[in-house]
Amino acid sequence: MSRLEVTEKIISTKVAKGLKWSDIAAKVGLSKEWVTAGCLGQMTFDPNAAGIIATIFGLTEEEKKWLMVVPYRGSLPTSVPTDPTIYRFYELVQVYGTTWKELIHEEFGDGIMSAIDFKMDMSRLPDPNGDRVQIVMSGKYLAYKTY
Amino acid sequence: MSRLEVTEKIISTKVAKGLKWSDIAAKVGLSKEWVTAGCLGQMTFDPNAAGIIATIFGLTEEEKKWLMVVPYRGSLPTSVPTDPTIYRFYELVQVYGTTWKELIHEEFGDGIMSAIDFKMDMSRLPDPNGDRVQIVMSGKYLAYKTY
Amino acid sequence: MSRLEVTEKIISTKVAKGLKWSDIAAKVGLSKEWVTAGCLGQMTFDPNAAGIIATIFGLTEEEKKWLMVVPYRGSLPTSVPTDPTIYRFYELVQVYGTTWKELIHEEFGDGIMSAIDFKMDMSRLPDPNGDRVQIVMSGKYLAYKTY
Amino acid sequence: MSRLEVTEKIISTKVAKGLKWSDIAAKVGLSKEWVTAGCLGQMTFDPNAAGIIATIFGLTEEEKKWLMVVPYRGSLPTSVPTDPTIYRFYELVQVYGTTWKELIHEEFGDGIMSAIDFKMDMSRLPDPNGDRVQIVMSGKYLAYKTY
Amino acid sequence: MSRLEVTEKIISTKVAKGLKWSDIAAKVGLSKEWVTAGCLGQMTFDPNAAGIIATIFGLTEEEKKWLMVVPYRGSLPTSVPTDPTIYRFYELVQVYGTTWKELIHEEFGDGIMSAIDFKMDMSRLPDPNGDRVQIVMSGKYLAYKTY
Amino acid sequence: MSRLEVTEKIISTKVAKGLKWSDIAAKVGLSKEWVTAGCLGQMTFDPNAAGIIATIFGLTEEEKKWLMVVPYRGSLPTSVPTDPTIYRFYELVQVYGTTWKELIHEEFGDGIMSAIDFKMDMSRLPDPNGDRVQIVMSGKYLAYKTY
Amino acid sequence: MSRLEVTEKIISTKVAKGLKWSDIAAKVGLSKEWVTAGCLGQMTFDPNAAGIIATIFGLTEEEKKWLMVVPYRGSLPTSVPTDPTIYRFYELVQVYGTTWKELIHEEFGDGIMSAIDFKMDMSRLPDPNGDRVQIVMSGKYLAYKTY
Amino acid sequence: MSRLEVTEKIISTKVAKGLKWSDIAAKVGLSKEWVTAGCLGQMTFDPNAAGIIATIFGLTEEEKKWLMVVPYRGSLPTSVPTDPTIYRFYELVQVYGTTWKELIHEEFGDGIMSAIDFKMDMSRLPDPNGDRVQIVMSGKYLAYKTY
Amino acid sequence: MSRLEVTEKIISTKVAKGLKWSDIAAKVGLSKEWVTAGCLGQMTFDPNAAGIIATIFGLTEEEKKWLMVVPYRGSLPTSVPTDPTIYRFYELVQVYGTTWKELIHEEFGDGIMSAIDFKMDMSRLPDPNGDRVQIVMSGKYLAYKTY
Amino acid sequence: MSRLEVTEKIISTKVAKGLKWSDIAAKVGLSKEWVTAGCLGQMTFDPNAAGIIATIFGLTEEEKKWLMVVPYRGSLPTSVPTDPTIYRFYELVQVYGTTWKELIHEEFGDGIMSAIDFKMDMSRLPDPNGDRVQIVMSGKYLAYKTY
Repeated sequence: MSRLEVTEKIISTKVAKGLKWSDIAAKVGLSKEWVTAGCLGQMTFDPNAAGIIATIFGLTEEEKKWLMVVPYRGSLPTSVPTDPTIYRFYELVQVYGTTWKELIHEEFGDGIMSAIDFKMDMSRLPDPNGDRVQIVMSGKYLAYKTY
Repeated sequence: MSRLEVTEKIISTKVAKGLKWSDIAAKVGLSKEWVTAGCLGQMTFDPNAAGIIATIFGLTEEEKKWLMVVPYRGSLPTSVPTDPTIYRFYELVQVYGTTWKELIHEEFGDGIMSAIDFKMDMSRLPDPNGDRVQIVMSGKYLAYKTY
Repeated sequence: MSRLEVTEKIISTKVAKGLKWSDIAAKVGLSKEWVTAGCLGQMTFDPNAAGIIATIFGLTEEEKKWLMVVPYRGSLPTSVPTDPTIYRFYELVQVYGTTWKELIHEEFGDGIMSAIDFKMDMSRLPDPNGDRVQIVMSGKYLAYKTY
Repeated sequence: MSRLEVTEKIISTKVAKGLKWSDIAAKVGLSKEWVTAGCLGQMTFDPNAAGIIATIFGLTEEEKKWLMVVPYRGSLPTSVPTDPTIYRFYELVQVYGTTWKELIHEEFGDGIMSAIDFKMDMSRLPDPNGDRVQIVMSGKYLAYKTY
Repeated sequence: MSRLEVTEKIISTKVAKGLKWSDIAAKVGLSKEWVTAGCLGQMTFDPNAAGIIATIFGLTEEEKKWLMVVPYRGSLPTSVPTDPTIYRFYELVQVYGTTWKELIHEEFGDGIMSAIDFKMDMSRLPDPNGDRVQIVMSGKYLAYKTY
Repeated sequence: MSRLEVTEKIISTKVAKGLKWSDIAAKVGLSKEWVTAGCLGQMTFDPNAAGIIATIFGLTEEEKKWLMVVPYRGSLPTSVPTDPTIYRFYELVQVYGTTWKELIHEEFGDGIMSAIDFKMDMSRLPDPNGDRVQIVMSGKYLAYKTY
Repeated sequence: MSRLEVTEKIISTKVAKGLKWSDIAAKVGLSKEWVTAGCLGQMTFDPNAAGIIATIFGLTEEEKKWLMVVPYRGSLPTSVPTDPTIYRFYELVQVYGTTWKELIHEEFGDGIMSAIDFKMDMSRLPDPNGDRVQIVMSGKYLAYKTY
Repeated sequence: MSRLEVTEKIISTKVAKGLKWSDIAAKVGLSKEWVTAGCLGQMTFDPNAAGIIATIFGLTEEEKKWLMVVPYRGSLPTSVPTDPTIYRFYELVQVYGTTWKELIHEEFGDGIMSAIDFKMDMSRLPDPNGDRVQIVMSGKYLAYKTY
Repeated sequence: MSRLEVTEKIISTKVAKGLKWSDIAAKVGLSKEWVTAGCLGQMTFDPNAAGIIATIFGLTEEEKKWLMVVPYRGSLPTSVPTDPTIYRFYELVQVYGTTWKELIHEEFGDGIMSAIDFKMDMSRLPDPNGDRVQIVMSGKYLAYKTY
Repeated sequence: MSRLEVTEKIISTKVAKGLKWSDIAAKVGLSKEWVTAGCLGQMTFDPNAAGIIATIFGLTEEEKKWLMVVPYRGSLPTSVPTDPTIYRFYELVQVYGTTWKELIHEEFGDGIMSAIDFKMDMSRLPDPNGDRVQIVMSGKYLAYKTY
């Protein structure tokens, strides 16, 4: 058994039962962003959350244990994503990557925005010209230091 | 002459003169995110903005014209970025890519967040545990339709 | 279960039963281009269309549900296609890619032709020197804007 | 000297003089699609067209000769294009590639749409919801035959 | 079921029964080059030939139908082949590719040798210094035309 | 100085003077295929041939010496060629590679067609349905032996 | 069934029975280098040798037949090997590749060392500073010739 | 200045003066294999050898210093070599890589043949069927140890 | 059966039983770094250690034998790792690779740090600003020598 | 001007003047690891350190400014390094990558060792069997948290 198999069972069950990520997240008591990432095999659940997830998706005891094991992360089958919804984010890295770098360095100095001490919220922004997807990210600034 | 040469001259002049992107953006009258991307060869300036940029960086008339030509976009030398500051954003695509996809589809249906009809703001979020980089993105939702 | 398995069942059944995409599309009541892409795992069916497809291909209730889930798009096994029929389209991107870019920018300004708000029609063009494949594409123009 | 240098001179001169591809094509007396591709180093001009192009861009006699030499085709710096305007066409190959293949085979049999005996027209399609880019392609059908 | 499975069954049966491609081709009544390519999943058989192949290899009715479906072509597992016998042909493309291009253009003008309207014969050329493999290829010349 | 520079000078001079490969080959007294490959930096000339080539293209004494140095072979800028004329040969390797392998092994046993002890002739094959490019290749069969 | 399956069975049986390649080779009556390569799916056995191998590893009649079929060669899962023992040989190609080329050309002229008409012996070289692996390779020199 | 420039000057001078690697090595007093690798930028010369090389190739004092700096190794422009003479060695890694691994492990245990504590000799092996290239390699065996 | 299957069984059993690598290593009597690498299929166990591992994980006799076979090393699914925890080490190679090279050469001369005659210790370094991961590596220096 | 040009000037001057990284670091007053990385274009100097570096290497005022600009990091020309000294570190990632991951997670939980809040020391470890390269790394542990 592997985490991948548990992820596939979760996805398959979600389709069969017609569940929603936001409802699942509400039951777990955490953000929909983090819980979805966890169900897709990218985050590690604590025993309590794992128990709730296991109940929702009808996981066995062994499958539940895999939810508590740190996964080998990376959710995409190719280094440049082919799916248009995901590609747009890769495109942002291509177009804005050097801009992010310049502005982080100008505001903070030599360092990075952490992708580990990180959180994110995605929401709908109503707009008369067509609603917009809004994503708010925040990651701790980590500085390179001399030694 | 090419847009790349103009970009290199802008970057080189910025170092030599010790300029700041936020000051440059304030003179242009647009956001620091868009203006920086433009100076790095990723956006197209209108004649007025191009004139201001040309003055700041001492560009020739021909160099100024290149600022008004739509560039061949893509600011990174490799498909997976090697620079740690930029890599963290690529890592987000790897870890959260399928999550973004799931949540956009759950909230909006089958479609994407546009990376064209898109805007972004980057700011400092003071935090007692260490300040954070905050990025707010918003892109128009575009739906796949049947035909 | 996964969408890929449903796609494989559809393709396999089509061969076994000797069905035609245009007939299937006619029953669904949508274009042959969109319905074929959907059956090949690239589009999302609504409940009505999914029901018709399920009937045609003898899908189970769970398989039918997968037709209504947004798929991870990308129908090719390699980033440069090896199949000659599909490669010719990749070749057009290699040979005409920069031309399309120049002409879109000349006519519309800085922006793109949407591949989401997009439709397409493929037909036979009788020609005494040998019939021709005609493809008419139309995609909404989306502009990059300043902010 | 190489064709690439001639192409760069043409692009550079076009920016400096503010020329338009459609005007250039009109002077040559051919479609804007073909002439732009030729100026971008993807097609071979005959002596008459080469002379007109040479006059427009102020090319030397030797540069003009390069316009009449068959070029090494391929206009993109990477196998998956990074520029968003061009990437959308690559995305169409990813999403619709297998659909094109199926429909060509259903209508014509085992063969391809030629990318050599090929022509194309790009135009603006006015639309109240936002104008659309329309591309009409036609390529001769070539059949695989037994032997 | 897929064409790949049919191909694997054909190869496996050929080894088990000790058949020869030239004998199989003789029964089909076509060249050994075309029939072998077809059995290896690269060509489409008509009903008559498919029937003969099905009999030889003991294929089921459904497997026989797959022989009549246009395959997704490309017979190599990597873009640069690792097998020495096949690599030598790739090496010829590396060493002689630009020569073929120059000589085709010199003799015919701007165009290509079709790989679709194409045929090929491979034979043994007796030679006192060691017999030689002789391959005669012929493909229709297709011209790029202006429009 | 390098062989590449000599090759570029040869190509550039050929365009400027309007020379033909077949005429050059006739003066050298060897086949047009071999001489073209040599001029394109893929073969090594002996002193006599190098002298003739040097005279035709106005090479210096040092440039002539480079013609007699064994080159680093490989004439293509990418492992999968982008130029359509050359790609068709790569496509033949993709489609027919396993067929060539099978037929060589069936006729000769376990071994290869040499790409070193190899010769080739390209000619025009008149045909009422459009002239054809004919290529005749012959390479010595080399056997794998046990030891 | 495929040659790969036979190879896996041979490797698996070798582990289970604790056999040694040199003993197996002695029974076959050929060098340990060639026999090991053959058992690993890189060489073609004649009926006699195949019979001996089949007996040693308990192969079925059909599995034995696969040993006599020319394999698709290439024993590594990636183009740059990850295994350190094998990588060292790749490293030799990287570091000494151009040296081998220069010295072969200096001694023999323009040509190659055949990897087909080739044999090899690997042995232990006792050394007070630590024993050494000695590999003696010999391959026929093949000359490029003019034509 | 860089080591690459020194290497290019050495190669260029060798062609211009018609020198031979074996003569150069004799003057240096080391093997032709090591000296050639050093001149091609893959080894580090000591002051004495560097002085001899500098005299032979007319290097400046600064160029001579570069010969004594440890180079960034790797002499090939692509990870899979395109040059046929060098490719044959890569092919040996593909075909015999797993065999070398098996035989080293069988004879020595878990470890590698060092490519650092390594030496090599290349020579001509006269043979009535055509002379052969013989390469004798020896590298220290290094064992993986537990800790 | 293959080593990979044994590795997967070990990992799966570890999750199911909730074992810890450090406890397993203590039972084996070797460092946790080496034992973990061995259990993950990267090292070769001697009979004694293999027996202990087999008991802990409930391996069969045949599975135990695989632990004593030298594995094909390389534990990552892609050449650039996608998992953030592992990527950070790759990032160190990208950022510090040339520094390591310079400092090794400055201190020792032309040579390498062995990755074979190598050991490593990973531990927790308590720190009031947040505990740190400390890794101490030591590898034998191996010199390139002239010959 | 670019940081790369400054780096090349520093390296070139170091060779010409015969400087040592440890002496340079002593003058700057920081570790040899950090200073070398900085001189190789991977770290950002503060004005004081930049002034010292500029004096040592005879940099102009503009070149000195580049030392204070955050660089685009990544010091290797290929994603898998070809240089043997650097490759050994990549090999450690391949062989020990999953082990590092397991042990970090076992000791600390789900998180990473920072490569930003990181320091390192490289030294010589005298050993009667041959001196060893010792590298001590320490990076802050960063935890993934739920949100």
